[in-house]
Amino acid sequence: MAETFKAKDLIITPATILKEKPDPNNLVFGTVFTDHMLTVEWSLNFGWEKPHIKPLENLSLHPGSSALHYAVELFEGMKAYRGVDKKIRLFRPNLNMDRMLRSAARITLPEFDKKELLKCIQELVRLDQEWVPYSTSASLYVRPTFIGTEPSLGVKKPTKALLFVILSPVGPYFSSGSFKPVSLWADPKYIRAWKGGTGDYKVGGNYGASIFAQNEALHYGCQQVLWLCGEDHQITEVGTMNLFLYWINEDGEDELATPPLDGIILPGVTRQSILDLAHKWDEFKVTERYLTMNDLIIALKENRVKEMFGCGTACVVCPVSDVLYKDENIHVPTMENGPKLATRLLNQLTDIQYGREESDWTILVS
Amino acid sequence: MAETFKAKDLIITPATILKEKPDPNNLVFGTVFTDHMLTVEWSLNFGWEKPHIKPLENLSLHPGSSALHYAVELFEGMKAYRGVDKKIRLFRPNLNMDRMLRSAARITLPEFDKKELLKCIQELVRLDQEWVPYSTSASLYVRPTFIGTEPSLGVKKPTKALLFVILSPVGPYFSSGSFKPVSLWADPKYIRAWKGGTGDYKVGGNYGASIFAQNEALHYGCQQVLWLCGEDHQITEVGTMNLFLYWINEDGEDELATPPLDGIILPGVTRQSILDLAHKWDEFKVTERYLTMNDLIIALKENRVKEMFGCGTACVVCPVSDVLYKDENIHVPTMENGPKLATRLLNQLTDIQYGREESDWTILVS
Repeated sequence: MAETFKAKDLIITPATILKEKPDPNNLVFGTVFTDHMLTVEWSLNFGWEKPHIKPLENLSLHPGSSALHYAVELFEGMKAYRGVDKKIRLFRPNLNMDRMLRSAARITLPEFDKKELLKCIQELVRLDQEWVPYSTSASLYVRPTFIGTEPSLGVKKPTKALLFVILSPVGPYFSSGSFKPVSLWADPKYIRAWKGGTGDYKVGGNYGASIFAQNEALHYGCQQVLWLCGEDHQITEVGTMNLFLYWINEDGEDELATPPLDGIILPGVTRQSILDLAHKWDEFKVTERYLTMNDLIIALKENRVKEMFGCGTACVVCPVSDVLYKDENIHVPTMENGPKLATRLLNQLTDIQYGREESDWTILVS
Repeated sequence: MAETFKAKDLIITPATILKEKPDPNNLVFGTVFTDHMLTVEWSLNFGWEKPHIKPLENLSLHPGSSALHYAVELFEGMKAYRGVDKKIRLFRPNLNMDRMLRSAARITLPEFDKKELLKCIQELVRLDQEWVPYSTSASLYVRPTFIGTEPSLGVKKPTKALLFVILSPVGPYFSSGSFKPVSLWADPKYIRAWKGGTGDYKVGGNYGASIFAQNEALHYGCQQVLWLCGEDHQITEVGTMNLFLYWINEDGEDELATPPLDGIILPGVTRQSILDLAHKWDEFKVTERYLTMNDLIIALKENRVKEMFGCGTACVVCPVSDVLYKDENIHVPTMENGPKLATRLLNQLTDIQYGREESDWTILVS
């Protein structure tokens, strides 16, 4: 019985009709898909089947499938970038593979060899390489997904599962090409995650549950939810992004701070990369620490806040200009301060992603 | 644009080949499905389509469907019973329909007229009526499911959705026909639900996330998880069931207690029915109140605990004999005490369900 699938066993069925590629300047995130997909089936009885690359098609799922009833499902998000040298790169994909295996264990889906999945993904991106935008402000979003396909209604570890990967060309997050800050809605009545739950895993249940609050944020004229937690209203995440505060802390130190991975924070790849870069620069204090709304409000009053920004694969860094909290709009002077650090991080990360700077954080697809 | 589907618009395509019905004594919960299913499609542009009853078949879903990535999904569970008069009854299905609409709002799926869905379900059960076991210890499990089929990767309210209902004949929960008590594993390191989350809605994310802890319970030789919450280790639910404690409370009163619907407890139909019956009997105090592990332990020491049991659609009532907590096995004398109340509740509820007693809690299917 196969304990993993292997890239060398890939069965590739190329599409006979190729779709027209969209204008990279008019892409809405995740709405257009490429010609091919990767699928790999698993069952308790037979283990992993051979991986397939085939034309993108609908999945045929038993209506009792555990992904549809009990959210036995997880996903990953990463991007393939067309560099200035025309080569295609993935950014720290091993971090995505590590996280995917962590999520699989938590949601009771089977293990596999992460190196083999990465090789299969590289093969898929190679086949659809013309879909990687010839642009340094666009990219090809890679969405590995793993679902339980157990065709029965018992709430239990599935005996069947399907791993699949789809690809979607995505445009610049900020269509103007420069930063557009977001306003946040912070209300402790919705909680994204709590210790002992699944907030630190990339599983479906965390996301569907967040849409209701996101709609309420829009209703109040804000763009994203600032997720609070606990009686002291800890600042945890922003929408589907991690959060950073660049400020002069209570002890008068220049500090870049983000909440610690204590069980309720998603371990983001961009979050980790920002921490790694800032540590390497060694120009200011870099801390994983708790931040409360009160900490933020006092620091704003004392003029100690420089920048606040979300970060994630979609936007890289996303400046925050306002927080609506307890019916009051709190202005954060991120944009007034450049934003110097956010810009520097964006430039550094995109320099690596688009091959303007050599780095062992990227691996070549072709 | 149709704001609801209507039962009078049902398009029925009967199966040409009918499957063999299984022996009702050898059924594993939710593994065998009937000949037909109900499906209704919705889209933002066109509203609700006409409902279809057709042969059970696999669903064809876009691989980007929001149910597969973000758990935009909910379900219900109810049963059709073959009465002693051979008539088929549903038990308080309006409570399931109400809860289904609550879940839909929370997970951002569209509204519909719950009376129309109930009529469609009745029609489906009528068509598959020979699948309702001729037995007063088995029944036909009815599983309405509602999923987001938005074919794009934005985390947002879906513009497409699919409501479907599948049916599965299920045997007696206790195969011996008499109670078999369960042992519980109580460890505060896993939390099922928290205020501001979705624990009081029947959405997929709550269930997939619970399997990991359930497997750990099995590892420790227990059958179900006793879900705790908070620093004081409040007792909340058991596995996928609500929980009742029948005891002499701190004030020396005979009391049937269950945790209140404060945002982390699923509002179970059996839970509500037990509360309603006990209130009607008016023989002891009936309370929705907090119960902690410490309350339980002290009461056991003082010999004040009569019965502890889970309740749900699957088992009706499920006695608890032991709780493994902080590495110690705590024995609960439920079985030693009859269990008198659990038995009485089981008999009363099944008398209604199987038509041995007239009640406005049931509605006839045929």
